[in-house]
Amino acid sequence: MVDLAREFDAYLRAKLDEYIQEVSQLCAQPSISARQEGVLECAELVAQTLQKHGFRAQKYETPGNPVIVGRASGRSARTLLFYNHYDVQPPEPLDLWTTPPFQPTIRDGLLYARGAQDDKGEFVARLAAVDAVRSAYSGELPCNVIFVVEGEEEIGSPHIATFALQNKEALICQGAIWEEGGIDKDGSPYNVLGGRGALSVELTVQTMKRDQHSGGAHMFPSAAWRLVRVLESLKGADERIRIEGFYEAVRPPTKLDLELTDALPTREEQFRELLGIREFVLGRTGKELNRAVFEPTCNIQGIQTGYQDKGAKTIVPARASAKLDFRLVPDQDPNDILQKLRQHLDTQGFTDVGIAQLGGAIWPVKWSAENPLVRLAARAGEEVYDLPTRIYPLIGGSSPVYAFTNSLGAIPVILAGVGYWDNRQHAPDEHVRLVDFLNAARHIARILDGFADLSERNGQ
Amino acid sequence: MVDLAREFDAYLRAKLDEYIQEVSQLCAQPSISARQEGVLECAELVAQTLQKHGFRAQKYETPGNPVIVGRASGRSARTLLFYNHYDVQPPEPLDLWTTPPFQPTIRDGLLYARGAQDDKGEFVARLAAVDAVRSAYSGELPCNVIFVVEGEEEIGSPHIATFALQNKEALICQGAIWEEGGIDKDGSPYNVLGGRGALSVELTVQTMKRDQHSGGAHMFPSAAWRLVRVLESLKGADERIRIEGFYEAVRPPTKLDLELTDALPTREEQFRELLGIREFVLGRTGKELNRAVFEPTCNIQGIQTGYQDKGAKTIVPARASAKLDFRLVPDQDPNDILQKLRQHLDTQGFTDVGIAQLGGAIWPVKWSAENPLVRLAARAGEEVYDLPTRIYPLIGGSSPVYAFTNSLGAIPVILAGVGYWDNRQHAPDEHVRLVDFLNAARHIARILDGFADLSERNGQ
Repeated sequence: MVDLAREFDAYLRAKLDEYIQEVSQLCAQPSISARQEGVLECAELVAQTLQKHGFRAQKYETPGNPVIVGRASGRSARTLLFYNHYDVQPPEPLDLWTTPPFQPTIRDGLLYARGAQDDKGEFVARLAAVDAVRSAYSGELPCNVIFVVEGEEEIGSPHIATFALQNKEALICQGAIWEEGGIDKDGSPYNVLGGRGALSVELTVQTMKRDQHSGGAHMFPSAAWRLVRVLESLKGADERIRIEGFYEAVRPPTKLDLELTDALPTREEQFRELLGIREFVLGRTGKELNRAVFEPTCNIQGIQTGYQDKGAKTIVPARASAKLDFRLVPDQDPNDILQKLRQHLDTQGFTDVGIAQLGGAIWPVKWSAENPLVRLAARAGEEVYDLPTRIYPLIGGSSPVYAFTNSLGAIPVILAGVGYWDNRQHAPDEHVRLVDFLNAARHIARILDGFADLSERNGQ
Repeated sequence: MVDLAREFDAYLRAKLDEYIQEVSQLCAQPSISARQEGVLECAELVAQTLQKHGFRAQKYETPGNPVIVGRASGRSARTLLFYNHYDVQPPEPLDLWTTPPFQPTIRDGLLYARGAQDDKGEFVARLAAVDAVRSAYSGELPCNVIFVVEGEEEIGSPHIATFALQNKEALICQGAIWEEGGIDKDGSPYNVLGGRGALSVELTVQTMKRDQHSGGAHMFPSAAWRLVRVLESLKGADERIRIEGFYEAVRPPTKLDLELTDALPTREEQFRELLGIREFVLGRTGKELNRAVFEPTCNIQGIQTGYQDKGAKTIVPARASAKLDFRLVPDQDPNDILQKLRQHLDTQGFTDVGIAQLGGAIWPVKWSAENPLVRLAARAGEEVYDLPTRIYPLIGGSSPVYAFTNSLGAIPVILAGVGYWDNRQHAPDEHVRLVDFLNAARHIARILDGFADLSERNGQ
């Protein structure tokens, strides 16, 4: 390995504006998988972008949105895989955006747009790193690189597991860099050793053929009240999920997990200030707030029933529905939880309540802090950010990384990205900071540079 | 009193099509008070309509929508007042209408439109009756007639009480015919001796400045779950309202109330068939279902929180709101209940939950079955419908009749209208049957005819 870090950095600084322009072009193309808006157009744009950066791009059809795969060969036989996605969350509520979500705008060194960070900014930062390394290596790459860019991450990646399983020969790699990553509020780079699983469902109840006049509320069965009873039955005010057997498969955090977690900064004050939160769930504070990530959750994404417009409408609603997501910890199995949810409703007398799964289930994942790629990323991070890498044993969010680790063997998976603590991802005014974009590219260039020799140096 | 009933009937049968045409014209003009859509245009149309039928029309401004008053003088000094309204309920959900709600359409002897029954069809049937009586009386009327047509009934009539109080000299009358009325499923005409009060509120809770990623659901306080806890606190699965002191002022039904109620037909099987209801509130059946009208209710009109569109959105909602209505029985006071609701929320730790009153409060009313006008309406009803008049001691719905009885003295108030059991009022495919329209006009013509002599005949 030749240390070409200064060359990478000079290259990236010189071309930063061009890459930000490229992010803007991608963000200007809506790609809302939740309602299939602009997604296919964005897939085409991603394929073109990969080709522009010297990758052989290939579109893999799935029953849902296509997966775009880009391949570039390098000097060594080793292969590093990047996972990204081109779909974004819905931008609503629109009135809370300072500038429209699909009109990328730079203000004070920040690029605002839906997808600016999650995940289009991330994707382009990696292409920039590849370009920088290729330039320093006189047009070659030190290892093979595969990009997997899917279009259904924001709806739970329903087809990525099958894709990874069906194409595992073509995706063989010795390590992967997942979407997301970046720096904490104090500027420290970080990495994670696992993520929670997720199961999203919509519960629906219909008590009558149509809404009735609320003058008959003493007779007509209300779907709205019935849904409230269903929700009550699922979780108590103590946050304990009341589905029988729900906690059966939970693997409690180890002593090391808890030590690493307790060593993490608390974001309590940041959240209080930034979000105006008076009280967190169950009144948790400090280390307790961090440790809560080891608890599975039952969240209401939204409730839909009755009259929503201005003023009053004197009706008893005939239909009501709630979208929920469960975040699962190792070793809970989303398919098992779905079965237990049905059993719970039946046992509680809610046989009339329908369950529709939304998107694909996601399994929780967890791996080791001792992995050589994890250590390389930490070293490279320290060089770029001048601070030691912080390790999160488990994060609250979910990603389809299980689909790859299950199919491709226990490959190490790391994070290295453009994020910071206030990107507003999934919310109005999502943005990426230009300085974070640059540093992420510098970080990834160093990882790419070191990856080829990793096996010789540490026996992996 | 000359019995001119045959002349009334011949006149009304000959002109039915013209009057239905007039209903259609009124229904083609949207007048949705809940969102102030087309309401002022409809008020103008109502004034023109009254003038066309020989009334002096006058527009009374209020802080909300104007009240249109029509006056016509008659031979006697006695005055009969008609109360109607020109506003309608929102038409949503639009996809459940067979033809568009504001494009009136006749199919198989039924006129379909929002407002066809409630309350534009009702209004025109009364004008038709006035015309028929005037024609039989050689252009005169046997008594004075006042029409009060307001534009905020569907949002709880927030200004009608003040209007009635401020204009009580101009509204002096010896009896009133309220909106609604008609026949039961078996064809019997009916009358009611009271109605429940109503209080509509919107409860709002905000736990954070903006929605957060649901990967943080173990930390971020959910407005959706908090709203569920609020609703739980308001009413148990036993339907008992948990607000302290809520039942304090409830006057229990008398023995006669219960006897009259038990004599009423049960609509249980009709509702089961028509609405696909498997189980009514609390599993009530038969007479129990009818008697439940003496219970006050707490109804959810709608809940709004989080993501409502297709698919999933992995957020913890920052805001949640529910629109509720309480139906109150004699002698509950809506202002008192509003105060008790605030106290309840504060006591339960929900000091952060906002309450906004929606529309005006409505007080419950109740009067006597022995009133001469009630008896006249019953006799006239029997003549038109060939069946005895059924008496409901209390109905579940609410109307601003309290505003007039409180201001104008204890005037008798009756019903005589175009309704039948399946008008779908407040719901998609609202309609009026042409035969009901005709009979209602015949019924009202007879009441108008008899009203002038009522005081001499029975000492009122």
